[in-house]
Order: sequence, then structure tokens, then C-alpha cells
Amino acid sequence: MHGWDAAEFAIAMTDTVSPLAPEQFAHLPPLDGVRIGTTAAGIKYADRTDLMLMIFDAPASVAGVFTQSLCPSAPVEFCRHNLGGGAARALVVNSGNANAFTGKKGSEAAQITAKTAARAVGCGLDEVFLASTGVIGEPLDANGFSGALEQLAANTEPDAWIGAAKAIMTTDTYPKVATRTARVGGTEVRINGIAKGAGMIAPDMATMLSFVVTDADIASGALQALLFDGVDGTFNAITVDSDTSTSDTLMLFATGTAANKGAPHISDAGDAALADFKTALFDLLKDLALQIVRDGEGARKMVEITVKGAASDEAAKTIALSIANSPLVKTAVAGEDANWGRIVMAVGKAGQEAHRDRLKIWFGDIRVAVDGERDPDYSEEAAAQVMKQPEIDITVDVGVSDGSATVWTCDLTKEYVAINGDYRS
Amino acid sequence: MHGWDAAEFAIAMTDTVSPLAPEQFAHLPPLDGVRIGTTAAGIKYADRTDLMLMIFDAPASVAGVFTQSLCPSAPVEFCRHNLGGGAARALVVNSGNANAFTGKKGSEAAQITAKTAARAVGCGLDEVFLASTGVIGEPLDANGFSGALEQLAANTEPDAWIGAAKAIMTTDTYPKVATRTARVGGTEVRINGIAKGAGMIAPDMATMLSFVVTDADIASGALQALLFDGVDGTFNAITVDSDTSTSDTLMLFATGTAANKGAPHISDAGDAALADFKTALFDLLKDLALQIVRDGEGARKMVEITVKGAASDEAAKTIALSIANSPLVKTAVAGEDANWGRIVMAVGKAGQEAHRDRLKIWFGDIRVAVDGERDPDYSEEAAAQVMKQPEIDITVDVGVSDGSATVWTCDLTKEYVAINGDYRS
Repeated sequence: MHGWDAAEFAIAMTDTVSPLAPEQFAHLPPLDGVRIGTTAAGIKYADRTDLMLMIFDAPASVAGVFTQSLCPSAPVEFCRHNLGGGAARALVVNSGNANAFTGKKGSEAAQITAKTAARAVGCGLDEVFLASTGVIGEPLDANGFSGALEQLAANTEPDAWIGAAKAIMTTDTYPKVATRTARVGGTEVRINGIAKGAGMIAPDMATMLSFVVTDADIASGALQALLFDGVDGTFNAITVDSDTSTSDTLMLFATGTAANKGAPHISDAGDAALADFKTALFDLLKDLALQIVRDGEGARKMVEITVKGAASDEAAKTIALSIANSPLVKTAVAGEDANWGRIVMAVGKAGQEAHRDRLKIWFGDIRVAVDGERDPDYSEEAAAQVMKQPEIDITVDVGVSDGSATVWTCDLTKEYVAINGDYRS
Repeated sequence: MHGWDAAEFAIAMTDTVSPLAPEQFAHLPPLDGVRIGTTAAGIKYADRTDLMLMIFDAPASVAGVFTQSLCPSAPVEFCRHNLGGGAARALVVNSGNANAFTGKKGSEAAQITAKTAARAVGCGLDEVFLASTGVIGEPLDANGFSGALEQLAANTEPDAWIGAAKAIMTTDTYPKVATRTARVGGTEVRINGIAKGAGMIAPDMATMLSFVVTDADIASGALQALLFDGVDGTFNAITVDSDTSTSDTLMLFATGTAANKGAPHISDAGDAALADFKTALFDLLKDLALQIVRDGEGARKMVEITVKGAASDEAAKTIALSIANSPLVKTAVAGEDANWGRIVMAVGKAGQEAHRDRLKIWFGDIRVAVDGERDPDYSEEAAAQVMKQPEIDITVDVGVSDGSATVWTCDLTKEYVAINGDYRS
């Protein structure tokens, strides 16, 4: 599984890798007590790795954040239900079919998958977690890949994280992986995470699927509190196209195996011993979230939008997302046009307090607008130079108070339209 | 001014006329007491008609609905202020520059324009109404076209409606005109309307600019009530790209000159004598609003979205707009893909009650989904045939109650991205 690079991957999986892809991918080392298997189960395409099974040798603590869609997928409902048990032994993820809007058949398919996994792993049904991504509305034939799942359980290995990241991809042009270490009570613990995204990416949840595992010894309740805290400025601060999937799932598992090395058991998210872990976790979540934006369908530019001077942090985020989701702002970025008039438009439509005549706007370091009009010192050439870069920072001060927020998005290109105008065929 | 057709117009003004343009344009007859002048004042481009002056020989009743943007343009603020006076003698509209986000200079430019018009027409400053459309953030040099405005006032004609519709265009590929007659108390009255749109089109207000004039004798208060009533299912039910302009303006003027033919004076919008007029007015507003969608930037498909079975009409409209504004739905339409999974997604993210397992979806007459899953009788070929048409109806029953709403949008094409990635240059 090692030794592959982005170019090699591109040839294997898709025609083109996003030009914003990280230059190199992290190697995710094995985590004690975690084994992974992947296979091509033929869910939608032949010879495409599309099924991933992760086994926790002992029950892991578990936390999750899911789509806010009122039409969630069957696996999302299944996971929400099992989350109450607070223990995970198996995670099954398939790509190619989202098992969403599949009615009763959808719940049945989730049950069949979970039962097969529980039997193969030797655990309770309530210790299984599921996620599916791909086409919506097509019945998922879980019987079809039950056999593959049983075989997988017998063929897992600890050092297969990159394979897991690949197995959950759909229109992604590269797998998303990240790893961090942190100290909890003097003992080093590790956090590994994988994600997939591409399109239908907007809060809440922002990503389609992401799974993060640590060997730290943290109780499920504390884990859930950490995750809620961590998503606000990371997965829930990214948007590709303002569209929220029926399947968005972010799960965090803690095996507790670092206790063998002396890591303390943590039952409260406010425990001071978690400070370093929290920083590392949030940093990893942001890393994965931004990798998703960098692989936004058709993306050619990465855009970081910071709004300050708002009535509150929440108001700032609403304004920032209004800018980030504006088709006119996103096409202007695609066209390398420092069109700050469209930023004003997006601020104005956000419905949050903004002082029109105190508004300031920057592209990169170039202040293009001040006091409600064009900056008299504004050089169009300097701003044009900023817009030519693959990564663009936009900052807006709305002149009301001190609320601030940062969100990330990509540009809206002809390629986005091409990809999504012909996805199913 | 007569005798031109769409093809001829296309050659004159732009490279291509929208394929969804009406096959023929209405001829708007003169209205007693209304004179129009247009000219090329060189506001942004040379030799481009960009200035329109409409004169009401006697004070007309006036009503207006404006953008909800919190960063409105100077002309919007000017009109809102003058609306209180309830009388109009002059309407000045320029294209090429929106006079938005132009700070103090913007208010000054509005004042200069209005003063010049008031002097030329011989009326009070509070009887002048203004609108500007075009680039945001560039100072508008009102002194530059003051002379042109004075000349215009001396060169108006009654039969120049199509010229007015052309003068207010920006990236529109055709002028939007509509006319209706109605009976008020046994007397025939007429309503003429013009509009411009293209991009940055979403409620509220939906259009950038539209001006409607009738010779009916209706007081300003009643006129305003009629207009508020009329926009909800027309201008505020269309969206091209979810982006709300800083300049959106819809104004309705009533000269009252039909009183000379025996039309009664109406002072209450609830007056039974207005029934036929109301129908004609709302029909005209819808006609103009749909013409704007048909000329949405890059539009190749016209989409009518009806949501029924919602908790309320308002909830239905929220869901319908969530579908209409979804980039994934819009690109699927562009790709002629009957991708109803994306409709489910858009229903789910709308935040309004919907019964996932009672959801029904139709493309045209083809029911593609029922009871929360794919319709067992659904023929992909039949749905594909619907998607090939230039006009597509999407209907969704969310299975909650009996709230319903209809909105209109267009598809999201590569041309939209091309137009908006290179608008200013």
C-alpha cells in the first residue's frame, strides 16, 4: 500500500487530480487494537475498491456528528441509534451507493449489513456503525456483498489506512488522510483520520464522511463533547456548493489502548490533561476539512474567507458563508476577478447587521474597499496579482462589533458544472 | 422602433439571445400622459443606449418594492425616501453603473441626477425616482450625463417603450416587455411593464429593475398594497443564482389618465372594482418575472418547481427555493439528468418539515419517487425524455399538510460560469 504518489493515484482512479491536492500525503501508522480490511465488492463498478471494514479488538468509545438533513440516509439513522450504547467494535463503510431515500428497503439493507458484520466480528449489533456514500435513491443490495464482508473480517491488517481512505472515495480525486500525536498525562497518543468529500458539501455536517480514531483512553461522553466543540470551526466551516448531503457523517473513536503505555482514562472533556489532545484533534479535523475543500468538484482555487467586526461570531459565520456560497463570488474567483462589488452584495443579502459605510474588504493584503467605497489607494493590478494565486484570502470588516469567523470554500468552475451535469451516466 | 425581431436584436446588442427568449415581443402602446426618452450617455460604454427618462405629465400615484439587502444602492435609498410623498413626475434609469457601494459620492450622484431631472421636467425633487444597474462600487459621474438628461427631457415621445426596455439592459440578451388590459368599473385601462434581469437574481426582491405603469386611477396607498400582494408569487418567486442585488427595484405608477375615459378613482386595494385589474396586473408581473428567468445568465432550461403537501405555503416556498437554488439540482437539469436524489437532498436541507417516507417526486408527468423510494413503475427513458425539453416542471409532495408554492428558476450551465467569470473585463 505504500510508495504510491499522487500522480500514480490519479492514473489509477481518475483522470485528473485536483491542482489543489496536498503535495504529499501523510503515512498513517497502525493504531493498537485497530485492524482494517478493504475490498472490491462490486457495489456499483467492477474492480473498484468500495467496501471498508474497520475492527476494534475491544469496544472503543464512540462519538458522532451527522447531517442536519430531514431526509437522512438509513446508515445515519442506524448510527444515531447505536451512538447511545457508547461502544464500537466494527465500522462498515461502502462507496458507490448512499443507501439514502431507499425507504424500508434501506433500513433492511442497513440491518443486513450490520448483522453480517456483527457475526463476522463477533460483537453485538449495537456495536456496529455504518456509512454509505454514492448515488441516492438506488436500493442497496446488502445481500450482494455480505459474503465479501465475511471474508474481509478474516483478512484485516493494522497498516491499511490509506486503503481505507481510498475505499470510501466517490468523485474525490485523491484520498484524504491526516495524523497527529499529542500528550495526554505525559503519554504520547496518536490520532488518525480519513475523509471523503468532493461535492454536496456544506454545513451541517460539512463533509460527507470522515472517520477519526485515537488510541487515547477517553469516555464516549467526553469524546462527543470534544467532537461537537471541534466541528464548528472545521467541518462545519467549509462549503463547496452549499448542498448538504443526506449522508454526512463524522465519527470519532477512542480505543483506549494507549492506557497500556500509561495514558490516563479521561471521562470529562474539560479535563486539563486533554489540552494538548484537543489542540491536535482540532488541527487534524481542520486538516481533513480543508483537504475536502481542496478536492471540491472542479476546484481550481482555495478561498479562505474571514469576516470580522460582526455583531457576534455567529453573525460573522453567517456572513462568511453567504460570501462563500455566492455563485457570483465563486465565479469571480474562478475568473481571477477581484470583484469586491459581489462581496458587498453577499454581505448585504446575509441578513446580519453590517455598516455599509464602514465596510472594509481585502483580497490578500490588498485593501480594495474602505468606508463604504473603493479604497482610494487601491491598485487593480496588485489585486489582480492576488487573484492569480491558487490560494486566496478574502477579509471583510463589517464595522459593527467584534464578532469574527473564518470559513473555507473553492471557486465555481465550468468543471463543476461538467462533473455534476453528468454524474450518474 | 418597431419592426425589429429577436434575431435582429441579438446582432445589435449581444452575441446570442437566450434560447428561452419569447418567440415574439409584445408591442406596448402609448399610455396617455407618459412620455419616454432614451439616449447613449456614455456611462460605461460608448454608443450604448444607457439612459432612460420617463415623464408623467401630471403627478402619478407610485408604489415600490426594493431589495432586502442591508447594503442597498444610493438610488434605492433615494426612492424609499420619496415614496412617502406618493407622487411621481419623473423616473430616471441608467445602466452601466449601479451607483451601489459608492459611499457619500453615491448619494451625491443621486442628488445631482434627481436635481437635473427635476429642473428639466419642472417638478419637485420629491417627485423624481431613480434606478441604476451595472457594476457595483464604481463612482457614478452624474455630472457627466446631466447634459444628456436635459436634452432628453426635450425629446421624449409616447411610443418608446421598447427603447426604454433596451436602455435598462446590462447582460440581458433581450428586452423584457409586457402589456395587459383590464376593466375597472366598465372602463378599459392598460398596464405596460418593462424589466431587466440576467444575474444576481433572487428574492427579495427578485428582479434587478422593473417598472410598470397603468393609466388606471388608483391612489398610492392602494397601489402599494396591490404591489406587495403581487410580488409574492411573481418577482419574489424567481431565482437565477440565489444572489440578491443591492439595487433590486420594482415600481408601479398609475397616471390616472383613464379617468378621462370614465374610469373611477380607486383608493382602497380591496375595492371590488379592482378584481379584473388585479388579475391583469399579477399576470403581467408574472410574465415579466418569468422573462427574467428565461434570460438567466447562461440559461438553457426553464424550470418550474411546485412543492405541495407542506406545513404551510411559506414552508412550501422555502423548500421550493431550496430546490431551485441547489447547484447540484441546477447542474443536473443542465445535464438533462432526472437526478431526483438531488431533489431529496434539497428537500432535506431546507429545514422545513417533510415526511421522508411519504415523499413523492415528479419530473413533468413522470412520477419518479413515491413513499420514500424510487417509484417501482418509473421509466428512466420517460423521465429522460422530459429532461430533454427546454421547459421542465418538477413537482414534490412532502406529505405533511396542504401548503403549496411554485417558484421558477433556470439551469446552471458552463455559460453561467463563463459569463460571470469574466464580467468586468
